Amino acid sequence: QRARELGIKMGVLPTGALNAITDVEGVKVGQITLLEGENVRTGVTAILPHSGNIFQQKVPAAIYIGNGFGKLAGYSQVEELGSLETPIVLTNTLSVPVASDALIDWTLGQAGNENVRSVNPVVGETNDGYLNDIRSRYVKKEHVLNALAQAVGGAVQEGNVGAGTGTVSFGWKGGIGTSSRKLPQKLGGYTIGVLVQTNFGGVLKIDGVPVGEELGQYAFKEALDKSSDGSCMMVVATDAPLDARNLKRLAKRVLLGLAQTGGIAANGSGDYVIAFSTANRILHETPQATYGATYLHNDYTSPLFMAAIEATEEAIVNSLMMAKTSSGTQGHKIEELPKDKVLELMERYGRLKK
Amino acid sequence: QRARELGIKMGVLPTGALNAITDVEGVKVGQITLLEGENVRTGVTAILPHSGNIFQQKVPAAIYIGNGFGKLAGYSQVEELGSLETPIVLTNTLSVPVASDALIDWTLGQAGNENVRSVNPVVGETNDGYLNDIRSRYVKKEHVLNALAQAVGGAVQEGNVGAGTGTVSFGWKGGIGTSSRKLPQKLGGYTIGVLVQTNFGGVLKIDGVPVGEELGQYAFKEALDKSSDGSCMMVVATDAPLDARNLKRLAKRVLLGLAQTGGIAANGSGDYVIAFSTANRILHETPQATYGATYLHNDYTSPLFMAAIEATEEAIVNSLMMAKTSSGTQGHKIEELPKDKVLELMERYGRLKK
Amino acid sequence: QRARELGIKMGVLPTGALNAITDVEGVKVGQITLLEGENVRTGVTAILPHSGNIFQQKVPAAIYIGNGFGKLAGYSQVEELGSLETPIVLTNTLSVPVASDALIDWTLGQAGNENVRSVNPVVGETNDGYLNDIRSRYVKKEHVLNALAQAVGGAVQEGNVGAGTGTVSFGWKGGIGTSSRKLPQKLGGYTIGVLVQTNFGGVLKIDGVPVGEELGQYAFKEALDKSSDGSCMMVVATDAPLDARNLKRLAKRVLLGLAQTGGIAANGSGDYVIAFSTANRILHETPQATYGATYLHNDYTSPLFMAAIEATEEAIVNSLMMAKTSSGTQGHKIEELPKDKVLELMERYGRLKK
Amino acid sequence: QRARELGIKMGVLPTGALNAITDVEGVKVGQITLLEGENVRTGVTAILPHSGNIFQQKVPAAIYIGNGFGKLAGYSQVEELGSLETPIVLTNTLSVPVASDALIDWTLGQAGNENVRSVNPVVGETNDGYLNDIRSRYVKKEHVLNALAQAVGGAVQEGNVGAGTGTVSFGWKGGIGTSSRKLPQKLGGYTIGVLVQTNFGGVLKIDGVPVGEELGQYAFKEALDKSSDGSCMMVVATDAPLDARNLKRLAKRVLLGLAQTGGIAANGSGDYVIAFSTANRILHETPQATYGATYLHNDYTSPLFMAAIEATEEAIVNSLMMAKTSSGTQGHKIEELPKDKVLELMERYGRLKK
Repeated sequence: QRARELGIKMGVLPTGALNAITDVEGVKVGQITLLEGENVRTGVTAILPHSGNIFQQKVPAAIYIGNGFGKLAGYSQVEELGSLETPIVLTNTLSVPVASDALIDWTLGQAGNENVRSVNPVVGETNDGYLNDIRSRYVKKEHVLNALAQAVGGAVQEGNVGAGTGTVSFGWKGGIGTSSRKLPQKLGGYTIGVLVQTNFGGVLKIDGVPVGEELGQYAFKEALDKSSDGSCMMVVATDAPLDARNLKRLAKRVLLGLAQTGGIAANGSGDYVIAFSTANRILHETPQATYGATYLHNDYTSPLFMAAIEATEEAIVNSLMMAKTSSGTQGHKIEELPKDKVLELMERYGRLKK
Repeated sequence: QRARELGIKMGVLPTGALNAITDVEGVKVGQITLLEGENVRTGVTAILPHSGNIFQQKVPAAIYIGNGFGKLAGYSQVEELGSLETPIVLTNTLSVPVASDALIDWTLGQAGNENVRSVNPVVGETNDGYLNDIRSRYVKKEHVLNALAQAVGGAVQEGNVGAGTGTVSFGWKGGIGTSSRKLPQKLGGYTIGVLVQTNFGGVLKIDGVPVGEELGQYAFKEALDKSSDGSCMMVVATDAPLDARNLKRLAKRVLLGLAQTGGIAANGSGDYVIAFSTANRILHETPQATYGATYLHNDYTSPLFMAAIEATEEAIVNSLMMAKTSSGTQGHKIEELPKDKVLELMERYGRLKK
Repeated sequence: QRARELGIKMGVLPTGALNAITDVEGVKVGQITLLEGENVRTGVTAILPHSGNIFQQKVPAAIYIGNGFGKLAGYSQVEELGSLETPIVLTNTLSVPVASDALIDWTLGQAGNENVRSVNPVVGETNDGYLNDIRSRYVKKEHVLNALAQAVGGAVQEGNVGAGTGTVSFGWKGGIGTSSRKLPQKLGGYTIGVLVQTNFGGVLKIDGVPVGEELGQYAFKEALDKSSDGSCMMVVATDAPLDARNLKRLAKRVLLGLAQTGGIAANGSGDYVIAFSTANRILHETPQATYGATYLHNDYTSPLFMAAIEATEEAIVNSLMMAKTSSGTQGHKIEELPKDKVLELMERYGRLKK
Repeated sequence: QRARELGIKMGVLPTGALNAITDVEGVKVGQITLLEGENVRTGVTAILPHSGNIFQQKVPAAIYIGNGFGKLAGYSQVEELGSLETPIVLTNTLSVPVASDALIDWTLGQAGNENVRSVNPVVGETNDGYLNDIRSRYVKKEHVLNALAQAVGGAVQEGNVGAGTGTVSFGWKGGIGTSSRKLPQKLGGYTIGVLVQTNFGGVLKIDGVPVGEELGQYAFKEALDKSSDGSCMMVVATDAPLDARNLKRLAKRVLLGLAQTGGIAANGSGDYVIAFSTANRILHETPQATYGATYLHNDYTSPLFMAAIEATEEAIVNSLMMAKTSSGTQGHKIEELPKDKVLELMERYGRLKK
């Protein structure tokens, strides 16, 4: 069950209808889970900003790098041009190339793109190499194309699914998580949705409760280890009319949400935030030199920042709450977060809301 | 009383002896408080990395900008050259120029600097204009020079003092706060100290307890307002042998500590982190083309990151716990955090350690 | 005489009417020259983006740092918010604080700014300490306020004037220079104006002719020296409707213009570019959450980039051509570029156009 | 023939023995040229910093983005950690994924890397889609592996070779070019080598001579077109002991060399510089927390900057001088630079040295 269903209610702002990134109208998610034998524990999660031809109708976007020990593809062009021209694909570290190649295939193959000779695929990753035999690179082009093909709106699967199939977070099984916030009308009425692929560590807190300490599992408890390495990929979508500059600022706040869960952005962590807005489209073909657009003033961005922080915290917690114990390659096994104990702690620390 | 004295113990790592930035050997702090009549509520806080001629013996340094709505002086040269050549001075927004000028005076006037014709003063600020008649610019050169002159090691005054005299945080009186961590030998044995000037907002949490919500005071509760604007200046010092690149990474983690307190880095917030290391000196006169130095490997930085996060959280909380109710210009008044209620909440939420 | 008047015609694009930054409609320049006795060789150059209340009607802006060994004030807020809220003031290195203070005075004092409590002064500098007794800090607030007060459109004085009074470039007397380009209608018809304060070095080329080599004066000819240190402040204005992101890109190209003159952006050089657009205004008071604006598409920016490169090259050359031999503090003397020899070289290398 | 062999001598510093990136001891280059029928005009160029296990013995590195309209892989990790752990591979835009995948294969397959589960391949590209049927993605893993396998020191092939097989620059056939500088002992005695893959435009100058104008071919001559789009990949190697911060600064200067040739870094250009130093190794396995290293002081970097600028200019010119007329897909044909006319111009403008 998701955190909120269990009475764990993080933050002060209301969620969207689904409490998912898909609350941002038009956003779709598709996931392929690869789970076979004892070695294959990986997958693909694709996020589409809209249902049209994304290359021809780009969306404003930005990427913030919390800690750059990672292999994300597509950073520099998003930063330079302020736009996203492909779906976002998440997968494992060594499968970034194949996923990039698949996004090129997908883009070249779309009607209207017959003359496209340059594509900037955006692919994020975390390293699932503890449970997954990552060196064998099980992800193939067709997996990525399938994830794209079956992307839909509506509820998003969480936990050991898609790109989160083999990930580990705070020493427990991590995975995919999502959450959203819907600002009250007086604060603009915008929706913010976050989706995360959790594979990082630190000293776990849930809604402020010191779960990691209480359960005796946290970074550097015994010695210097690399258990807090890993990574966290975060995608934040909004229907607020932000330009690339303010999307970058929004993306930076997502790290503050990660911090709420006790994440420390360790040396070996690849912590990236990809932000996009669905409110404006940037046309690939621009017969006119100029365009008119409506954007949000700087002064009105702060509630969006707060919403992104809350949704990120909750998305990360959801990824942990929805994940299941998993064994994998080389006999490795990762336990899920002991939900009963967690709820007991939440109760003891006065954080269960009924 | 400081948080820890009251039984509020944030984080899992031990503090230094003083639980202050001055636990980093050689670091000194000097503060001048300007508090007169009803209009003057401001001051100066100076941090010296060592007691020698800082211009001639620079220290490795970096500055991270969490949100750049601020007037910090000295950013670009620190970033380009990776070093700090003056003390760090904190003051109010409109007094950055006078403080910069004073740092130039101070540097030009030191023995050995007779031929110096270029100085990069580093001055941070927050806006105390709610309690202080900031437009009148009460800070004068001599205040800054006095703060520098009387800088000492040892315990650091907190709350309504120095550059924190007139600041407001989370709707309560903010101010100066400090804290430190001393890593166990197995994690390197290094000391990390943080000093903050708090003047920002969000949804206050203390050690994970939802103090802001419980006390009914948090950002955007009623409507879009700018109460969460403001700023937070953060200084992090360490004796770990970090180069400028890893100091920049350390500085980034300080924002994660701010996040733990519920800070949201609002649009109008100037959130800057200045990081320096006392372990190496960079000589101004360099007769040799090359220098030998000892640095920490990337792989060993994560515990320092965690320590910085913890010390930042605690420094911010200390700034609030040590601040006192203050009235100021135009009849404005800001209450201090109601410590009794806070302790009651900490107790209720199971966070008081005795 | 200016380069073009002498038959030196750099680039392929036409200039504006004045071949000056003031060709961008509304832009005004004011300069105060401080030249007294043998020690005072400094001054102030102010650039105003428009004649209204700049704080209340900010303009989109960006700053690019070519090499950050400098003390420019105002960087982080321009970058964060994408706007400029004061005039730009250029002066000497140690006078940045007083100029910043003067800009605060000027802003606080304007009608309509009675409640302003935060101002981000933008001040650039180069180090004129070879000819000017810079440690004495001769620039006072009134000089800056006077420069602002007397700013006008029309032709701009060049050479040993304002902030260029005491500067040195490529070993010859540098100073203030300006130039502009007006794009043909088919390329958008926009105007680009550049103003520079030259105080840097390298291997001087004028319109591709190896003047430095021919005259036997260039960086590191004899040994490692710091003669190529110094700095170059560059301001680029346009009436093209660029947002902050594209202004940043435009600013980056200005360094390519500096490169055309043989500049090397030496270690000790503070090379900063401040870019702004007069096409849109960003209101300080924004009752509406959103605003509509017209911007230029990325795809149409390249001619502006080329124009900025050309105008920068020519502005730098103008600063040298218009400068006069000057002696100053400590008996130092800097020769002007020997114009006769230069013209002879231009002729010999086939570059004089009549 | 190379520029210098024809009497075109750019800059004031001496070249290395080969006037190639391979003058930096230990650096090796391998190239595979794919040229078949009328559609295949592409290839691979690989640069190896040393002959050992690069993953286990990383080198200090940095990447500077001149204009980020490109698909370079590996940026963020190089920036975060300051090191390069694979060879650098250059290829065409749509083959970045396959080249990245090949670098992963290569790295995983090396002795000593049996447990490696994370690799950061660095791959640059330019778009050869005018002559090459780029959508067909002819580059396969084996081509990349072959380029790596046959990398050698010694002279480097230039022009229509490797990743430069199908590129176009300033409207003429571009390709691979290289050059180097060897600083005199009094300036440190270090070697700087540059290798470029030219596919960009502007207003061509050779050693300051306005070749583009004279030959009537330059950007925006007739109208706004995209002929100046394209890209330039630049790699700069040195044996000077630079850390990552100073390598980033060195990389920035390479753009100034590009500017010397009349490049404008157009909107559609992907202009990236990858810099590395062979003077220090960063061990992947670091049993000690700290390391001792020798680095160059900031103050001694300027001659390296100047050397990088000169070598870049010459490398770009070499790429043009060595390229041959080529026809390709869809009947497209690109002429080589008319060398006779160029030499005539060089003569006329007084720039031929005999």
